[in-house]
Amino acid sequence: MKFKGIMVICDGMGDRPHPGHGGKTPLEAAETPFMDRLADQGIVGFMDVISPGIPPGSDVAHLSLFGYDPYEYYTGRGGFEAVGAGLTLSPGDVAFRCNFASVKEDFTVMDRRAGRIREEAEKMVPAIREIKLDVEGLTYEFHHTVEHRGVLVLHGDNLSRQVSDTDPHKVGERVLRSAPLEEGVAAERTAEALNQFTLKSYEVLRNHPVNLNRIKQGKPPANIILSRGAGTLPKLQPIPQKYGVKASAIAAVALVRGVCKVVGMDLIDVPSATGGLDTDYSAKAEAALRSLKENDLTILHVKATDVASHDGDFEMKRHVIEKIDDMVGTIFRNVKGSDVYVAVTADHTTPVTVRDHTGDPVPFLLWGPGTLRSGVGRFCERTARNGNAGRIRGPDLIHELMNYMGFSQKFGF
Amino acid sequence: MKFKGIMVICDGMGDRPHPGHGGKTPLEAAETPFMDRLADQGIVGFMDVISPGIPPGSDVAHLSLFGYDPYEYYTGRGGFEAVGAGLTLSPGDVAFRCNFASVKEDFTVMDRRAGRIREEAEKMVPAIREIKLDVEGLTYEFHHTVEHRGVLVLHGDNLSRQVSDTDPHKVGERVLRSAPLEEGVAAERTAEALNQFTLKSYEVLRNHPVNLNRIKQGKPPANIILSRGAGTLPKLQPIPQKYGVKASAIAAVALVRGVCKVVGMDLIDVPSATGGLDTDYSAKAEAALRSLKENDLTILHVKATDVASHDGDFEMKRHVIEKIDDMVGTIFRNVKGSDVYVAVTADHTTPVTVRDHTGDPVPFLLWGPGTLRSGVGRFCERTARNGNAGRIRGPDLIHELMNYMGFSQKFGF
Repeated sequence: MKFKGIMVICDGMGDRPHPGHGGKTPLEAAETPFMDRLADQGIVGFMDVISPGIPPGSDVAHLSLFGYDPYEYYTGRGGFEAVGAGLTLSPGDVAFRCNFASVKEDFTVMDRRAGRIREEAEKMVPAIREIKLDVEGLTYEFHHTVEHRGVLVLHGDNLSRQVSDTDPHKVGERVLRSAPLEEGVAAERTAEALNQFTLKSYEVLRNHPVNLNRIKQGKPPANIILSRGAGTLPKLQPIPQKYGVKASAIAAVALVRGVCKVVGMDLIDVPSATGGLDTDYSAKAEAALRSLKENDLTILHVKATDVASHDGDFEMKRHVIEKIDDMVGTIFRNVKGSDVYVAVTADHTTPVTVRDHTGDPVPFLLWGPGTLRSGVGRFCERTARNGNAGRIRGPDLIHELMNYMGFSQKFGF
Repeated sequence: MKFKGIMVICDGMGDRPHPGHGGKTPLEAAETPFMDRLADQGIVGFMDVISPGIPPGSDVAHLSLFGYDPYEYYTGRGGFEAVGAGLTLSPGDVAFRCNFASVKEDFTVMDRRAGRIREEAEKMVPAIREIKLDVEGLTYEFHHTVEHRGVLVLHGDNLSRQVSDTDPHKVGERVLRSAPLEEGVAAERTAEALNQFTLKSYEVLRNHPVNLNRIKQGKPPANIILSRGAGTLPKLQPIPQKYGVKASAIAAVALVRGVCKVVGMDLIDVPSATGGLDTDYSAKAEAALRSLKENDLTILHVKATDVASHDGDFEMKRHVIEKIDDMVGTIFRNVKGSDVYVAVTADHTTPVTVRDHTGDPVPFLLWGPGTLRSGVGRFCERTARNGNAGRIRGPDLIHELMNYMGFSQKFGF
């Protein structure tokens, strides 16, 4: 017998006790009747998404949650970002995340986001695409994505993702020369191409009419493209082959969409789901329920918990968690009594006191027919540590879900 | 100081809450005063015999329980099956599990067990052994084991276990051609030999007097040998060297006997222990107690729990578990007050609702002098998840046992 499953991933939901809120975490402070109920009736535990104490990036975290050991499969962020932006990568291509930025004539960075330029960036793309790179057998693609962001993809044989960023990641510092991070001609060629692209982007942008107009208006010009996070496509067995399931993902964030696409999930677009604090939770729940009809496994990713965490906003995070609980409630009301499994977890901990990812384990629950009742009452970081599923690693949860859904493969006879 | 130990392995004993039995598992429904007592006084936890969510086969599960990581040491089922049937394998030999089966002239399988032929199969073995294989430097052995089953061993240099089965595993399908599953001449030679053997088995069996007689009686002829589960001997350090213990095993099932033998245990025969639901539990307990005099470690395997599980028979499984508890009681009464350690666990979960192995963790207990009292009261899947030993992996339990028995080797100085 085969069953269906939904995995809800609440980005950065894990947290720490907050001294200003009676020592509660946002998840403890929130009213979450539905997650509490699933946790109480199902199995509950805590998970090191990578390994104890290691803070996961969102890309690495999702790879791990989908069952791929990131130490074996992670090949940089750029590839996921490019695929998430809708580009098609070939094996060997190297992709970078880019920013439209403002630099002085001596290449000192004044604004890494060029005054948070938005639509105007798109108007400068044709000029950027005029750039010719003088590296044999190498071509490139450049795309503007959202706001001040873009993606650069280098196509060609003998490239390497082992090159350093041109983005200094800090205002007041000079643009960096990309350097090869490993021996061999591949990394040298890649760094050379990136340096040429960076320098030439300044040449074509500095006097671009859009920028001349921005300067007239007192806005910082978007006069250079800074690149970071070189990445390639990882070589992995996609989820439909790995587990024998048809899988889909509901996610608004380009990076997460990229990981989902690369591992072989179909992306479901929910126009009102923004990836921000204003996302449409009930539209996401409805889309997940519809997806169940056609798919065995559906991933439902919510970014807003992480946004509130990076803002250090306890009350907003509590509010977002309550919205997520409503969303889980909509799912619960529609699947109870059927044979659908629901897992809820986070991709990492982002304490509002730290405002960045940390390496604390995250809570998880797994609910459905035949799961042993934990009886923990509530779903939070504290009960998870005394739950009935103990402490697991990131790739274990999807294997446990596949086991209950009837898709796991026996090892041996 | 060195102490003695018994590990009781209840095949497939782990289960899930059963909706038809008040949400209890068979282990929860059974009266198990002795296992409860050992669990309460000893340490209790839950174990992923391979890793979370991965359903173990019996061979892989036992390798893991004996301390060998199956991802490193598992080399297919055939080798264990052959050794379990009493054959001697050399390194490099490739062994297969075989069935006497019935096929039509176009090699469509009519009955994978040839009407569950038993003693008559033995009478056809001399004819089978007349088969000549035309593959250079290669010889073979064929043995009938029990019922419709047999074992084929290919001897010779340059063989490979990476070949596919000839058994289609399904009635109404054609006998398969074995194909190499890896590059190179070794797999090609092995597949070629297996294909010759299969075809020639049909030639020597189709008009065999035993079969002509069976046809006259309206029984399906046993006119072909189907093979599956190619395996070699794993290269491993046997238990006497690995742990410094003299070890014995009481097990009726050929596959489990094979694993025990391959890892260097002495097999103890208990004629009234059948491997079935009618096995003689008290004779097994008595044999284990006798074995303690000559051995440091004794493995006591009971198959009946798995038989009841595959039959989907909750009441029978409950009954078998109570018989096992009596058996544990006999051991307990004889060893209490001495320095004998007792561990009880399962090799995998086989829920009666699923009727097949699943990847759920199994409960375990470890009792003896110096173990920290868990105070869980009862021994079951639920208490194990909240026990005082947490969640461990298959190879960990025997190491914990060796530690208490005083046989573990210090790592470092």
